[in-house]
Amino acid sequence: MNEAEAIERLRRFATDPAARGLADDAALFEGLVITHDSIAEGVHFLPGDPAGSVGWKLVAVNLSDLAGKGATPAAAVLSLTISSDSIWDEAFLSGVEAACTSYSLPLIGGDTIALPDQAPRVFGLTAIGRAGPRTPSRGGASPGDRLWLVGTVGDSALGLAQLLENRKAAGLLVDSYRQPIPQLAAGQALAPHASAMMDVSDGLLLDARRLAAASGCSAVIDLDTLPLSESFTAERGDGLEARLFAATGGDDYALLAALPDGLDPLTLSLPLETSIRAIGNLEAGGEILRIVSGSEPVALPEVLGHEHRGNPASPVAGRF
Amino acid sequence: MNEAEAIERLRRFATDPAARGLADDAALFEGLVITHDSIAEGVHFLPGDPAGSVGWKLVAVNLSDLAGKGATPAAAVLSLTISSDSIWDEAFLSGVEAACTSYSLPLIGGDTIALPDQAPRVFGLTAIGRAGPRTPSRGGASPGDRLWLVGTVGDSALGLAQLLENRKAAGLLVDSYRQPIPQLAAGQALAPHASAMMDVSDGLLLDARRLAAASGCSAVIDLDTLPLSESFTAERGDGLEARLFAATGGDDYALLAALPDGLDPLTLSLPLETSIRAIGNLEAGGEILRIVSGSEPVALPEVLGHEHRGNPASPVAGRF
Repeated sequence: MNEAEAIERLRRFATDPAARGLADDAALFEGLVITHDSIAEGVHFLPGDPAGSVGWKLVAVNLSDLAGKGATPAAAVLSLTISSDSIWDEAFLSGVEAACTSYSLPLIGGDTIALPDQAPRVFGLTAIGRAGPRTPSRGGASPGDRLWLVGTVGDSALGLAQLLENRKAAGLLVDSYRQPIPQLAAGQALAPHASAMMDVSDGLLLDARRLAAASGCSAVIDLDTLPLSESFTAERGDGLEARLFAATGGDDYALLAALPDGLDPLTLSLPLETSIRAIGNLEAGGEILRIVSGSEPVALPEVLGHEHRGNPASPVAGRF
Repeated sequence: MNEAEAIERLRRFATDPAARGLADDAALFEGLVITHDSIAEGVHFLPGDPAGSVGWKLVAVNLSDLAGKGATPAAAVLSLTISSDSIWDEAFLSGVEAACTSYSLPLIGGDTIALPDQAPRVFGLTAIGRAGPRTPSRGGASPGDRLWLVGTVGDSALGLAQLLENRKAAGLLVDSYRQPIPQLAAGQALAPHASAMMDVSDGLLLDARRLAAASGCSAVIDLDTLPLSESFTAERGDGLEARLFAATGGDDYALLAALPDGLDPLTLSLPLETSIRAIGNLEAGGEILRIVSGSEPVALPEVLGHEHRGNPASPVAGRF
């Protein structure tokens, strides 16, 4: 069963309004934004990743979902796989602690499970946030809205590529893959004004397509405007191929927001260091996603991001 | 790292009052009782168990934690492993649906993950309940309180033993292992009056010892009073050996409540069919747990239940 089939099946009984039709990254339950993300060895992290970074990443990817809804971290429940390697486990929990402390996320409970040695490590976290004055869904954008991106894309995918080539690779790109930064303050500033918002975790093009589809619009993204880091361009340049790589790489934990045309996000109370860039528009009709480079149309790549194929040979994951 | 070490490590930063010191089965967050239990193939269910019963069990074991705190089911978030066996996955989700529908538990979100074929299936659920007027912890009992048990013990462990001997075994005992019934209504009726309460999932003796230890008391349990089902006694009789098996078997999802002496639970608004039995007392001082058979002391068995050894050769799990 693939992810789409599973969600379709779950929708038959997940009819409570809090579920938001299982079409969003988080539930909205009585003023609380609730999300759950699991991460698994070989899927979201590499067996050789430092344990502390794995613990950090588990918390950060969940906080990124709260960021995408403009919520403030309030509580977390941990699902913990313990192993026979106490040093690894201890470092993992230190990473969880570091992220919880950094983002004022109280850990309030959870469970432990010990699996046989050959089983991949799997960790889960349920993160609960306090909703802000508005909790934008994926589906509220209108034709005419502009698409804005908070953060850069491509760093994490390039860091992963470096690690797959050389397990000892290090640097900012690898850090970006291992220890993503949730854009909480930016999300809170944008949420009251965003017609639609989500975090970008599976690849910008794939996630932008989802936002447009949920909103009943089409999205046009100008690859030339994509924010790339200096570390990224130093490695890959900023040509079309590099930009397509960045737009489909995934694990960015950037924010994608649709704002009404004319609203300048720099007039909002964004954190001083926020990188935010207009990357496209929403339109009525046509293909759900089109990409351009300046004024030139660009053919969509075959793979827009980490699709949830449900193929055990290519482990993948998604959330609903 | 074993479970106790993991929890000790987590306590260093899980200092929010909602965490209840990570010493309870659930967190108490702003009027909500929140719990998470994972179940894994080969640990909480057998590879040959019908998929629908696995889905049911995932929901039921979490609802049992809510029952132990007297909470009313309010919302659930699912962590779903999808596989290449769509028929299995579909049946699993039907089991989740059946349990959610039976106990009015709205599914509001979650995530999916696909693991390699050789990895054991792991499922998680975060269950959120509305707290009642009181949410008893494990630790509020006093010397003089009586210990009451809702439900029977031993059925599930005996059902598991039958399945391990013969994979085609069937009947009430096997059903008890595969499709436990959370004692929600009884928990809600008892919670306002219980000085301490918890669900019995890891073995009565182990869980009673935990309740006594958390309460700073000692517990005395009379094995002769243990409620055994007709199916159980038909197989094993009701002698001392059978009673020790039942008291240490685990997976019962019964409720253990400490009530003030003199309070007759039959005066409370328990569901008509509730089986509730006084099984012992709490005392001051002495060994934390003692067992007797009538007036005769009985030596404690070496293993009180499913201890969380964190030994990958014996996969186990617990919650905090």
